[in-house]
Amino acid sequence: MNEVAQQRCQLPDWRERLMSADEAAALIEDGMVVGMSGFTRAGEAKDVPLALARRAERDPLQITLMTGASLGNDIDGILSDAHVLARRMPFQVDRHLRAAINRGEVMFIDQHLSETVELLRNKQLGKLDVAVIEAAAITAEGGIVPTASVGNSTSFAILADKVIVELNLASPEALIGLHDIYVPGMRPDRQPIPVTAPDSRIGTPYIPVDPDKIAAIVLTHGHDSPSTVTPPNEATRDIARHLIGFFEHEVEQGRLTSSLLPLQAGIGSMANAVMHGLMEGPFENLTMYSEVLQDSTFDLLDSGKMIFASGSSITLSSSCGQRVWNHLERYRDRVVLRPQELSNQPGIVRRLGVIAINTALEFDIYGNVNSTHVNGTHMMNGIGGSGDFARNGQLSVFITTATAKAGDLSSVVPFVSHVDHSEHDVDILVTEHGLADLRGLAPRERARRIIDCCADPYYRPALAAYFEAASERGGHTPHCLEQALSWHITARRDGSMRSVVEATPTPAPVADDHV
Amino acid sequence: MNEVAQQRCQLPDWRERLMSADEAAALIEDGMVVGMSGFTRAGEAKDVPLALARRAERDPLQITLMTGASLGNDIDGILSDAHVLARRMPFQVDRHLRAAINRGEVMFIDQHLSETVELLRNKQLGKLDVAVIEAAAITAEGGIVPTASVGNSTSFAILADKVIVELNLASPEALIGLHDIYVPGMRPDRQPIPVTAPDSRIGTPYIPVDPDKIAAIVLTHGHDSPSTVTPPNEATRDIARHLIGFFEHEVEQGRLTSSLLPLQAGIGSMANAVMHGLMEGPFENLTMYSEVLQDSTFDLLDSGKMIFASGSSITLSSSCGQRVWNHLERYRDRVVLRPQELSNQPGIVRRLGVIAINTALEFDIYGNVNSTHVNGTHMMNGIGGSGDFARNGQLSVFITTATAKAGDLSSVVPFVSHVDHSEHDVDILVTEHGLADLRGLAPRERARRIIDCCADPYYRPALAAYFEAASERGGHTPHCLEQALSWHITARRDGSMRSVVEATPTPAPVADDHV
Repeated sequence: MNEVAQQRCQLPDWRERLMSADEAAALIEDGMVVGMSGFTRAGEAKDVPLALARRAERDPLQITLMTGASLGNDIDGILSDAHVLARRMPFQVDRHLRAAINRGEVMFIDQHLSETVELLRNKQLGKLDVAVIEAAAITAEGGIVPTASVGNSTSFAILADKVIVELNLASPEALIGLHDIYVPGMRPDRQPIPVTAPDSRIGTPYIPVDPDKIAAIVLTHGHDSPSTVTPPNEATRDIARHLIGFFEHEVEQGRLTSSLLPLQAGIGSMANAVMHGLMEGPFENLTMYSEVLQDSTFDLLDSGKMIFASGSSITLSSSCGQRVWNHLERYRDRVVLRPQELSNQPGIVRRLGVIAINTALEFDIYGNVNSTHVNGTHMMNGIGGSGDFARNGQLSVFITTATAKAGDLSSVVPFVSHVDHSEHDVDILVTEHGLADLRGLAPRERARRIIDCCADPYYRPALAAYFEAASERGGHTPHCLEQALSWHITARRDGSMRSVVEATPTPAPVADDHV
Repeated sequence: MNEVAQQRCQLPDWRERLMSADEAAALIEDGMVVGMSGFTRAGEAKDVPLALARRAERDPLQITLMTGASLGNDIDGILSDAHVLARRMPFQVDRHLRAAINRGEVMFIDQHLSETVELLRNKQLGKLDVAVIEAAAITAEGGIVPTASVGNSTSFAILADKVIVELNLASPEALIGLHDIYVPGMRPDRQPIPVTAPDSRIGTPYIPVDPDKIAAIVLTHGHDSPSTVTPPNEATRDIARHLIGFFEHEVEQGRLTSSLLPLQAGIGSMANAVMHGLMEGPFENLTMYSEVLQDSTFDLLDSGKMIFASGSSITLSSSCGQRVWNHLERYRDRVVLRPQELSNQPGIVRRLGVIAINTALEFDIYGNVNSTHVNGTHMMNGIGGSGDFARNGQLSVFITTATAKAGDLSSVVPFVSHVDHSEHDVDILVTEHGLADLRGLAPRERARRIIDCCADPYYRPALAAYFEAASERGGHTPHCLEQALSWHITARRDGSMRSVVEATPTPAPVADDHV
């Protein structure tokens, strides 16, 4: 191991800083603010967090934990179960942690992923005590080469008082050179960030840190958790088909070229299926400017349909991971990983005109989107980067299946129980039943189109009846406030929204001519 | 008049294009898409729209009307009453038009002000047939010098098939040179927009258009409507005091310098009062990077507290207008007017770290903000630029008085009836009762702070009781969905929320220690 370590670590006196995960974890004290690497379950520090959880079992401590986004290897759950997490930001996907958040035990701060380090840099989130960063290598000057994600690691390492590096000897050596690390200047004197295309390289391939701050180097050899993305099914294929058809139409109309525009896709099976769908369309020279590069990205690169992908992390299934990680050199000229404040930077997203494709939990008849809260109250994962992209890109698409829980819950509701994306930020909605193009429409027009194009046929008459009754009351965005949340109240009581449909007096016919 | 016109119009053959407003209005046909100058009731075309309304009385026609933002001189109301407006975007403040929108007669598309011309440029809003632009001058090459606003005039003039120029001979000649006109490149090849400070000048002082497109020149001499901003009162002075105190604290903590950061303030009496409050604080070398420059901007410039202000329009009271318009040369080096896609550009707002100060209609205990919809359904004005700034700036502040209608309505509610700004985009909330600093807080913490700091004491116990009951049900953002909208339902029924307070069983004590 030491021979590999010597290759990976060029820092002259690195052996003096070598210690066990338990020793390194001892540098973290109760009440500290800790920043850890990790984004979409890729590139998280693996051993120090577990050592911290073990220590907390005998010597309780609580910290504020910031990461890039979600951690893999059940680390968020283990830390949560060990009661280590007093505060957690900006994103998570863990079942145990989610439950603790919803019990009100862990204070979870759900943030736009581009914003966390902006706030930290301006001292708006307090001082960062310790950074724990997984690395593929350390340069002679102390530069840290990240592994499968950059996330917020750059600014965590630069801003923290002490840095613990987990040097992962099992990470592919070919990661070295894959990253492009750039730190925006302080405001108000910040200069334009010179990313002008997905393949722009504007920084260094490592995180530049003062080597004196590297307080510990821990040798590890763990692996990232494989992605849990499921293959496309009939519904997600239909969603993909509708969206691909829309893109083809936009090309015909001269609003997009056959290369479309740089694509962003949220994490998960649905967005992955849509990206897979692009294999079939008449597109070429596609690019991505996204957060996470999933299986579909590498399939598109392999097929020649895509020529370049920029992200902040790589999260793959086991089989795709085998292919990519063992042959990373094949992709080296076509992939770059950036800090998430760059991958999600509003100005760059606006400049490039990104097409943003994100997943909704539910949306309402006016096109307001709930991405985060089950029945308006219980956190699922977090807003992630969807707001960075949906607000600032050229086209903002939200996708979901029209129902959940075997049809018991309609994803199209009269009034969303929580708003993450207001109707101003939503151009296109897609379910397996169709696509609603909302550009340039007023709320009343949006309602008719969303009900007709996106809602499940079973729920359509009840939605149309709600809209008709609301419209009679007037308003720019008509509502019957007494009934607005009745679908969610019913779902909370019955576990199903079906009784709302059964209670709809006369199924209002949905005319065909108003779309 | 012709002598003045000759001075203002250098276009060689301009006399051949001279026509009456009625003749020019005849160029606009039924069904056309028309873009007009005008932003916050400044710089709108004044005669052609009225000619269009007159013509519609005898020869009905309907158009889609796009502007920068609101029009003055009752033009929106007159056009609405003449049934000229089939569709209207992206903002309005007119009483008559508002009523027509809320009756569902005019399709109003409420847009982020930075987005309209991005959509138009990409052909996502169809083709623009005619632009009607108020000008202070026309250069020899056909360059159009705008008047008191730039708004969307630049892209309207460039993208329209035909341009009608209203050459306003009563506009101050000193306007020439005040504007900085720049058009971002097409995506995906757009280069960084080189604004790096409020005083950056990156373009031309006129709108460059193909002179062959100038189909009509109409000589006018109308004036902009004076701003209706009311002087600070006790409540708005208290709001200003809380916010100024917060800024002072931020300076002490080293999070801001005494120059703060470039300031943005929404239009209206409340934001104007806050800006006035800055006269009192220990601040210096202030700058603005905002949409609209109001009385307070010029007072701050005159006092020496502010050194530069960038906006898209100037909207002043009669008395301040006298001072500024008659001596514009005094301000020429300290003021610039830009296209609204530049003044509101997400990337520039992020780069500069703008402090965004906008007005809320209401906000909920978790910090979600409703800026637009009275009781969730009826449009007031529109979201304007608040989303461009609140999402992307360094600090996002929303202000409102704690109650409206003499205390009958609480501006702090359990659940906002409409969301324009989700809690992710809201850092600071201020009412006359206090300031809630929400940075780094989870929803349950936000609720306690908002209730204690911002709510009117009369409504606090009922809000606290709601929050306590909701918290017992669990969730990241606890709610009792059955009661969530009850305050609005009551307000709709009674015109007052007071009976909600009266029905609150036991006024829950609000502890002091949890702030």
